[in-house]
Amino acid sequence: MSLDAVLSRIDAQIPEATDRLLDLLRIPSISTDPAYKADCDRAADWLVDDLRSLGAEAEKRPTPGHPMVVGHIGEGAPHLLFYGHYDVQPVDPLNLWDRDPFDPQLEETANGKVIRGRGSSDDKGQLMTFVEACRAWIAENGKLPCKITFFFEGEEESGSPSLVPFMNDNAEELKTDVALICDTGLFGEDTPAIVTMLRGLLGEELTITGPVKDLHSGMYGGPSMNPIRVLSRIIAGLHDDQGRITVPDFYEGVPELPDEIRAQWQGLGFDHGSFLGEVGLSEPAGEQDRTPLEMIWSRPTCEVNGIWGGYTGDGFKTVLPSKAHAKISFRLVGQQDPHAIRKNFRAYVESQLPKDCQVDWHGHGASQASQMEIDHPAFEAARKALSDEWPNPAAYVGCGGSIPIAGHFKRILDTDAMLIGFGKDDDQIHSPNEKYDLSSFHKGIRSWARILDAISKG
Amino acid sequence: MSLDAVLSRIDAQIPEATDRLLDLLRIPSISTDPAYKADCDRAADWLVDDLRSLGAEAEKRPTPGHPMVVGHIGEGAPHLLFYGHYDVQPVDPLNLWDRDPFDPQLEETANGKVIRGRGSSDDKGQLMTFVEACRAWIAENGKLPCKITFFFEGEEESGSPSLVPFMNDNAEELKTDVALICDTGLFGEDTPAIVTMLRGLLGEELTITGPVKDLHSGMYGGPSMNPIRVLSRIIAGLHDDQGRITVPDFYEGVPELPDEIRAQWQGLGFDHGSFLGEVGLSEPAGEQDRTPLEMIWSRPTCEVNGIWGGYTGDGFKTVLPSKAHAKISFRLVGQQDPHAIRKNFRAYVESQLPKDCQVDWHGHGASQASQMEIDHPAFEAARKALSDEWPNPAAYVGCGGSIPIAGHFKRILDTDAMLIGFGKDDDQIHSPNEKYDLSSFHKGIRSWARILDAISKG
Repeated sequence: MSLDAVLSRIDAQIPEATDRLLDLLRIPSISTDPAYKADCDRAADWLVDDLRSLGAEAEKRPTPGHPMVVGHIGEGAPHLLFYGHYDVQPVDPLNLWDRDPFDPQLEETANGKVIRGRGSSDDKGQLMTFVEACRAWIAENGKLPCKITFFFEGEEESGSPSLVPFMNDNAEELKTDVALICDTGLFGEDTPAIVTMLRGLLGEELTITGPVKDLHSGMYGGPSMNPIRVLSRIIAGLHDDQGRITVPDFYEGVPELPDEIRAQWQGLGFDHGSFLGEVGLSEPAGEQDRTPLEMIWSRPTCEVNGIWGGYTGDGFKTVLPSKAHAKISFRLVGQQDPHAIRKNFRAYVESQLPKDCQVDWHGHGASQASQMEIDHPAFEAARKALSDEWPNPAAYVGCGGSIPIAGHFKRILDTDAMLIGFGKDDDQIHSPNEKYDLSSFHKGIRSWARILDAISKG
Repeated sequence: MSLDAVLSRIDAQIPEATDRLLDLLRIPSISTDPAYKADCDRAADWLVDDLRSLGAEAEKRPTPGHPMVVGHIGEGAPHLLFYGHYDVQPVDPLNLWDRDPFDPQLEETANGKVIRGRGSSDDKGQLMTFVEACRAWIAENGKLPCKITFFFEGEEESGSPSLVPFMNDNAEELKTDVALICDTGLFGEDTPAIVTMLRGLLGEELTITGPVKDLHSGMYGGPSMNPIRVLSRIIAGLHDDQGRITVPDFYEGVPELPDEIRAQWQGLGFDHGSFLGEVGLSEPAGEQDRTPLEMIWSRPTCEVNGIWGGYTGDGFKTVLPSKAHAKISFRLVGQQDPHAIRKNFRAYVESQLPKDCQVDWHGHGASQASQMEIDHPAFEAARKALSDEWPNPAAYVGCGGSIPIAGHFKRILDTDAMLIGFGKDDDQIHSPNEKYDLSSFHKGIRSWARILDAISKG
């Protein structure tokens, strides 16, 4: 058994691996929109078939929402679990895409070849790096070096409502020595990363109702309250002048960053100017006494992800609307309790409503932040394996996004999770024209082959 | 020639008149939405045909937008012009309609029969009250008592962009002794009104751009500015704690209400509690030192008519949007200059933008307020005629809505306009389930017959 032979095979078979990914990307598995339910199901079927082609015992498992895919293959220690998600984000605004988001293609760009399409980076492309590493390993060696359980979710982009119940119901089957999660990015072009801190996420949707029906602003403008104005005032008041969030007790459970971690992060040479400059910004918003990297990796936020009310079509309509809506989310860190924050946020908003307004709530996901224990030898083995593949050594980093699965592995299965991914900052995940560099895909597959080798030897 | 005979004929032929109105209401002539351009054209054709059936010389006249309809009929003094508009408001939210808005029907309700459908009250039903009065008059007497020019517009609900150029180009043809406009309401169930004060309207649409593309709130939430939050803060700051508008110099040209007018209005017995109560409100918003009637008839306002940005579909998307949009309008009074206010408003918003934001503007209509001179004997003749038809005498009142045509008649044609209409507060104009009481339609037709009689004798 030779790692070099597996890596050579990976290099030789990148065109076939890319074609398989393009095939999966053609399935519009948008989990948050009920119109795409059958497509989510189809993506799950595709993965079951693909795992079976490796020789895995794989099945689609029903949930009240979109199905899980679970597969088992191989023998021997350690027993690894690999997690990814096959669902994708919505694609609007569709007019900003340069091609059909579900007609993916390998494109030549100034920065090399990219795989363009919704889900190419988040998370189908990343998920397939591991599957392809296993395929090459099996093709070269006849079998994998240890036992592997695949666990693919179809609700990650819509709050994962079925995940915890499913993990609870199938805890024995899913309990492994280490979990591997591929849904994060490189730290830099040449620097891989293992994420050890993840922010939690709380999603809230509110509808403020003023008058019981839409009114004519000529007839009622003045004496009638306008719920868009009420909502705007509430949103405007959610941050103070220093960028801090005003919800009572919001910062309970937010730890100060230890000095050694701050020093390590400062040593990474993160370029704040170009991080903002790439998206057309020049000044960090947010808490005025924190650096952008600190904000993203270690500080909580409150963002408005959507707002709507009144007439939003072409032309003008002098309506005084009955209702105004917003989707608001909080990124959480440390020990912040999402349920306490939900309660405090709702009470805070309700305390600011004028007498003639009412608010209706729709809660979306609520997950706590995660902090990994990196004592398991697999962490250091993986870090070294990654460092062998990439120009720069791998770093332990934080992550501003929310991948609650890592916390669930710890709490439900008592399994530590390693978050390793190959996405780049310019992948435009959740945005139009999402892409995944072919080099991310290729070196990602090679990285997993090295990690499998290192962990199974350790 | 007997007025009584005309009135009896009107009573007898209400079913046929109603059928004609239903036919016109079936045409979805939504002027603000380009998708309905052909329907606007069709509504104009319908009116041309109907005026020709009365014996009028009628034509559809092209404009850069939707066509005008102009018709002439009869001889003798005074020469009257009658104005109405055949376009209607959009119908969203469609799910709040109890029936197809363009499949109108005569419905029995607890308050009597109503004509239900978009445009039934605003303005097709009102427009047809005058046409039907003319039809009955001609049927009974062979001809009208004076010369009448019909002038119907198809862009009233979308800012009337072609109106002023058309009036300028056709001033000689449209110049008459008095103009009649039927686009307003009764003061109360039994009290007709002639409107002598009308608010102006300024419409603005703004788009605030922060980051150059939609971002992932996990990756950028914190250091990146959010244009929805910027827009919310700007909207929240447009009014102070007392409900006054904060745009610099906004109140220049706003007259104080003369004491005698305030006294007259107080004598009308307007029920502020039930005015608000009918739409589910209990407390007047707006300027805290004004009564609701004073606010609506004589005070300027600033309203948000629409807001949108980010993800607004089902489920949740943790997007940090690139853009946020709002449609904002101002109702103007007295000598307020809409162009100066537009300039000051834009400068005020721009002065509040953070460094990394930009704003793009799209101006909609801009019209000054109007104040009628009621010296022409036709005003008093009409007031008496109305008082003969209805249980209570007719009142001279203000109007919160904006009907710029009245000001244009004065400025361009030097013609005073009488605004007389039969709509009710619960007609739900601009809202789902718009209706026009059959009694409004019937007594409206009778009222115009009486007014024609009175003015032509005077």
